[in-house]
Amino acid sequence: MSLTPTREDKFSFGLWTVGWNAQDQFGSATRPWLDPVESVHKLAELGAAHVTFHDDDVVPFGSSAAERDTILERFKGALAETGITVEMVTTNTFSHPIFKDGAFTSNDRRVRRYGLRKVLRNVDLAAELDADTFVMWGGREGAEYDSAKDLKAAHDRYAEGLDTVAAYIKEKGYKLRIAIEPKPNEPRGDILLPTIGHALALISTLENEDIVGLNPETGHEQMAGLNYTTGLAQALWAGKLFHIDLNGQRSIKYDQDLVFGHGDLFSAFATVDLIENGFPSGGPKYDGPRHFDYKPSRTESFKGVWESAEANIQTYLLLKERAIAFREDPEVQEALEEAGVYELAQPTLAEGETLDDLLNDPTTFEELDVDEVASRGFGFVRLNQLALEHAIGAR
Amino acid sequence: MSLTPTREDKFSFGLWTVGWNAQDQFGSATRPWLDPVESVHKLAELGAAHVTFHDDDVVPFGSSAAERDTILERFKGALAETGITVEMVTTNTFSHPIFKDGAFTSNDRRVRRYGLRKVLRNVDLAAELDADTFVMWGGREGAEYDSAKDLKAAHDRYAEGLDTVAAYIKEKGYKLRIAIEPKPNEPRGDILLPTIGHALALISTLENEDIVGLNPETGHEQMAGLNYTTGLAQALWAGKLFHIDLNGQRSIKYDQDLVFGHGDLFSAFATVDLIENGFPSGGPKYDGPRHFDYKPSRTESFKGVWESAEANIQTYLLLKERAIAFREDPEVQEALEEAGVYELAQPTLAEGETLDDLLNDPTTFEELDVDEVASRGFGFVRLNQLALEHAIGAR
Amino acid sequence: MSLTPTREDKFSFGLWTVGWNAQDQFGSATRPWLDPVESVHKLAELGAAHVTFHDDDVVPFGSSAAERDTILERFKGALAETGITVEMVTTNTFSHPIFKDGAFTSNDRRVRRYGLRKVLRNVDLAAELDADTFVMWGGREGAEYDSAKDLKAAHDRYAEGLDTVAAYIKEKGYKLRIAIEPKPNEPRGDILLPTIGHALALISTLENEDIVGLNPETGHEQMAGLNYTTGLAQALWAGKLFHIDLNGQRSIKYDQDLVFGHGDLFSAFATVDLIENGFPSGGPKYDGPRHFDYKPSRTESFKGVWESAEANIQTYLLLKERAIAFREDPEVQEALEEAGVYELAQPTLAEGETLDDLLNDPTTFEELDVDEVASRGFGFVRLNQLALEHAIGAR
Amino acid sequence: MSLTPTREDKFSFGLWTVGWNAQDQFGSATRPWLDPVESVHKLAELGAAHVTFHDDDVVPFGSSAAERDTILERFKGALAETGITVEMVTTNTFSHPIFKDGAFTSNDRRVRRYGLRKVLRNVDLAAELDADTFVMWGGREGAEYDSAKDLKAAHDRYAEGLDTVAAYIKEKGYKLRIAIEPKPNEPRGDILLPTIGHALALISTLENEDIVGLNPETGHEQMAGLNYTTGLAQALWAGKLFHIDLNGQRSIKYDQDLVFGHGDLFSAFATVDLIENGFPSGGPKYDGPRHFDYKPSRTESFKGVWESAEANIQTYLLLKERAIAFREDPEVQEALEEAGVYELAQPTLAEGETLDDLLNDPTTFEELDVDEVASRGFGFVRLNQLALEHAIGAR
Repeated sequence: MSLTPTREDKFSFGLWTVGWNAQDQFGSATRPWLDPVESVHKLAELGAAHVTFHDDDVVPFGSSAAERDTILERFKGALAETGITVEMVTTNTFSHPIFKDGAFTSNDRRVRRYGLRKVLRNVDLAAELDADTFVMWGGREGAEYDSAKDLKAAHDRYAEGLDTVAAYIKEKGYKLRIAIEPKPNEPRGDILLPTIGHALALISTLENEDIVGLNPETGHEQMAGLNYTTGLAQALWAGKLFHIDLNGQRSIKYDQDLVFGHGDLFSAFATVDLIENGFPSGGPKYDGPRHFDYKPSRTESFKGVWESAEANIQTYLLLKERAIAFREDPEVQEALEEAGVYELAQPTLAEGETLDDLLNDPTTFEELDVDEVASRGFGFVRLNQLALEHAIGAR
Repeated sequence: MSLTPTREDKFSFGLWTVGWNAQDQFGSATRPWLDPVESVHKLAELGAAHVTFHDDDVVPFGSSAAERDTILERFKGALAETGITVEMVTTNTFSHPIFKDGAFTSNDRRVRRYGLRKVLRNVDLAAELDADTFVMWGGREGAEYDSAKDLKAAHDRYAEGLDTVAAYIKEKGYKLRIAIEPKPNEPRGDILLPTIGHALALISTLENEDIVGLNPETGHEQMAGLNYTTGLAQALWAGKLFHIDLNGQRSIKYDQDLVFGHGDLFSAFATVDLIENGFPSGGPKYDGPRHFDYKPSRTESFKGVWESAEANIQTYLLLKERAIAFREDPEVQEALEEAGVYELAQPTLAEGETLDDLLNDPTTFEELDVDEVASRGFGFVRLNQLALEHAIGAR
Repeated sequence: MSLTPTREDKFSFGLWTVGWNAQDQFGSATRPWLDPVESVHKLAELGAAHVTFHDDDVVPFGSSAAERDTILERFKGALAETGITVEMVTTNTFSHPIFKDGAFTSNDRRVRRYGLRKVLRNVDLAAELDADTFVMWGGREGAEYDSAKDLKAAHDRYAEGLDTVAAYIKEKGYKLRIAIEPKPNEPRGDILLPTIGHALALISTLENEDIVGLNPETGHEQMAGLNYTTGLAQALWAGKLFHIDLNGQRSIKYDQDLVFGHGDLFSAFATVDLIENGFPSGGPKYDGPRHFDYKPSRTESFKGVWESAEANIQTYLLLKERAIAFREDPEVQEALEEAGVYELAQPTLAEGETLDDLLNDPTTFEELDVDEVASRGFGFVRLNQLALEHAIGAR
Repeated sequence: MSLTPTREDKFSFGLWTVGWNAQDQFGSATRPWLDPVESVHKLAELGAAHVTFHDDDVVPFGSSAAERDTILERFKGALAETGITVEMVTTNTFSHPIFKDGAFTSNDRRVRRYGLRKVLRNVDLAAELDADTFVMWGGREGAEYDSAKDLKAAHDRYAEGLDTVAAYIKEKGYKLRIAIEPKPNEPRGDILLPTIGHALALISTLENEDIVGLNPETGHEQMAGLNYTTGLAQALWAGKLFHIDLNGQRSIKYDQDLVFGHGDLFSAFATVDLIENGFPSGGPKYDGPRHFDYKPSRTESFKGVWESAEANIQTYLLLKERAIAFREDPEVQEALEEAGVYELAQPTLAEGETLDDLLNDPTTFEELDVDEVASRGFGFVRLNQLALEHAIGAR
């Protein structure tokens, strides 16, 4: 009695997710890497609309130009056969030893230049495949030790790198937009642009900031103990939510990359509520792909790999149903009213009201019955319980 | 054989720090609140140059205008006698029940307007006392529950509030600059603008962003597992490090507000190194007050209160000595060279080099000996050990 | 369409939960303390079977013997009228300044002796009220600083204190059992017996260990990033799960004391599954009170207080329904089989098998087809997805 | 001007530390695995007294008996040449795919039996090499999902496995003692026996508990936000500190395995203080090897590998010097007195004092001047500042 996804649901998977060989820091591979072509076919069967990949996921690092062409031809064939499209492409600038101190911010200038070349080459491929988004996860941009980086120079170089790629995209007339994926740590002790906020801040300084936004990942924000949905909201508010990476994480620890919903389930409900319903009083909405960036657990065989892929889709669709019912419930609407949630959309100063008007209005301060105002109960707990009961299908 | 602070060291203390009555979430006060006038005298003796305060620290909430004047007169007397100056003022918009859902982002518009009035009134006082900085800690701006806030509206209101205060400062011709103090949580489940990054991002959208910057607190960033010094660096890089709150925190837990250095000691060394020495290849430097925002432990009598105040100063001065010696050590300079720390200041593209130049330079990619480049050892551990040995006075 | 609790559900509330005055570390009270008699009546209406309290919750610290008697008489009246019983009593050894360095492990021996007396006095009251459990939360037993405690002596004193109270219970012939409540930190920097494990370990060394067990709290274990249900399981396995404190916590941060389920919802499902269904292959089960130790948020009026109390009950009952359905689902049973969950109950050595037998059985090692065994897929993700779908009522 | 280690310092290194190939979760190897024989020689030069290893570190998984013999012969040659001894041996039951769901607690009984055999085989080798300690890190014993384990059965199997190995050691008459190494998570979502406390608790239930103790690792406890030194103290108090793993970790995140002191430096000072000086009022002391379990960062070449190994030794020796000076300082002794640290060693009940005596002594309760006692200042902050100044060589 499971729900059936359609292409309109825009489900998207990284090829490195289902394809992962299940090797981790403390253990060797429990599965072989999957052939990307096979993954495309399987994901199509499961109802996905898109795939995404790092260059090295499809074309092994160091392949010759000819090998690359052959591989890509075959890959495009699979796309054509299945109707799957590539909505996003990203570049691996973290696995090869050359990137051990980062790519755009490596202390070694040769690496920075090499990294830039690797990225630009992949931008061409992204454009060729008609992708909308070019994700950049700077997983190695950072340090374990405080003296290891000139942090002013590091931010300069990061900005330079991003602006260079963005300039290239514009020069070439590609429709691509760049989406930065923040992460607080792992594999580096401290990664630059550790959260949505830090990335937004750096973007605001770029020359080409108009085509640079964010790709926030559920678990990455939660690894810093931050509320993922609140982060998405700030990115949306800033007009910068270009892409999302959905997955699951259980508290502050190593990057778990669980199935979406298999981490903080109630928070996943809030995320889907924001994505599907938008802000209570309106405003910018996300309508890009629902992209899953997770890892099928190392304990699973291929059967488990595909069950886990499907679990992402099912959980999303179930939470979507409940989120829609939640907002449509008149009792919820009444509780939102009572809690003042809609009241917050009202500007603090009235239209046309000046600072002087405010200062000269004694009802706002001198004559305000502070204790009476303070006694208002917001009913947030009841509202949250309504959300919980909708999330678990009890209403 | 302790070090002697001078006014040039710019040590500054919040009156709420030494003055705290040592009441916490689970226990009643173990000391009375201290008279601000007494604190000013004592801090002067200890070598502080400045004090800072929330309005309510000096003038109890709800005092009449006449009471307020009397209290302030006496307070100014103490400043005059001691030569202590007020470098920063902040407003308490978190203790009174009226602010239980925040001030600038309370769902209740009456509270938002009241909060604005309370802040503006205090801006006048800050200007009157010739302060440079007006800190805003929005400790109650946030939520425990995901449905409790329209997060788009919340960011709108936060920005509106900040811009209104900034506009007032400009209108009045005050020299004040606003400094936002981020915190991830406590007392709210999730606080808006949880980190340096999120605050920088919001500031970049303000109309009056030129006079709005940051007041990052050591423990607040560490409560999100983030590197405080890296955060300071991004704020400096963005030209927004207007003020600092130094203290101590031991890992991710409740807000501890320990003495500076009594938390993550080695990280404190890195912080002092950045403040005193700046970035290795130059760039913006912080030269404002060294402000301590800590709490003397609840186990301490007044004797312990003053010992703890002095401990902040001593630790800072000791780490300053070592940080200076660290950078002057030729072996350290050589290790910084070897690690490529100075190399990072070199732009990735040469002056005048175009994208086409880069793309057409085969030495950057096609002909690069990737393995050779990858084999470079950066010597970061040795460099860190040199830092550690300087930090602990072993060189 | 809400579920109706009965006394057989054994729902129990601390009087300090609904009664809390909503004062926190950064703000003053937003509600008055509730009269315990009123709370008893209200909780009875909501379907609770029991209440619990600290001595000071009912009888203010420092009351005379006569005042105490009067208060207790009235309190017992309320119990009699409502049929509510007191299943657990605990002692406040953390709020008064005398306990600022702990009670049983205070460095000041006078405090240790005073704390013991306060506890013993309350043991008598617990017995008089026919309680089953005497909870001890040593919230102030700990330190902020590593030199502040002789940690060997501290563990000696902790054990001495517990053994003394237990000896007193036995001497008096009370039916009471002691339940230690671990917590990692807050209000102390590091609290002794920080987790279920540490408390179990200390208990195992006691002379009177037979009547000393645990009262684990959801949020407290999660503040150390630990899995609450796994902790409950180890306590059950050790025969030491004497009581439970259910509530909600969102990741590693200050102690939130949210409504049960309002924190990590999926983990709450696992907890209810263990409590209601026990271990898959049988073993010890918890059948004590379902005790909620939460705080109605500071934003709530009394209406919200009672809504929040009810939310605990509703969430528990809903998750109970789903947990029962989960285990009864044949597809789940089949998935548990496939995952080897029942296989784990089989001893590793067969009955009667000796070490030599094992060593001489080449099929276990020399002849084992390691790769074949390694290729088994456990199907854990599918099983988890089945759990998730049951938890959210989708099956 | 570095300090010179001697064999009496008992410095010990895992061969997997310096030998690590620097492959991590997100990147491939940046160095080749080191030949164990080379490591033994190098570590001897650096002043180490011992080495330790997992079976697979020295003899590749799946080697034939003949290959194994040849390899071990050569390895013993290196030991003989250098005078290095093997003080501890451990078994890799986590890397090979067969252990993907654990060894002693795998849901697959074939794996449990295979794991037992692999461990027993290695116990023989440990005995042959005259090791004192046999470490067991159950890194894969755990789960990502709550339904994946029967947690009662899992604890049964863990205990069975440990008791079986211990019985084998006794049967063979080996002098070996088992030391369990707890870890909260990574590579599993939740690992069984996550902390020192949980392991102590399980040990207390074993039939052969006399030869089973602990090997706590700095970073592992800190990954749960716990105080490592406090954990060591509880293990010492319980007579179970059989071995230690020293390294560095910066807050709650993935397992960093930094050089000792390169994480929480001030906490490292407290650890060395406990190891070298013992408890202030005496009691059990640790006198086993000072074993480093760290990873040379992935950014380092072999030069950096050896610099990092030496950094562990230097930091330990420096902190040892300071810890000894700390305790010898009369001002510190006076501060310890004032803080009541020695007073804590005094039993709460006097020798021969009965419960009745206590209850009948009105000076302990009825007549105690609670406010006067409460007013005592413990001076913990001053004491901590003295510790800090000693730690950084400022006294």
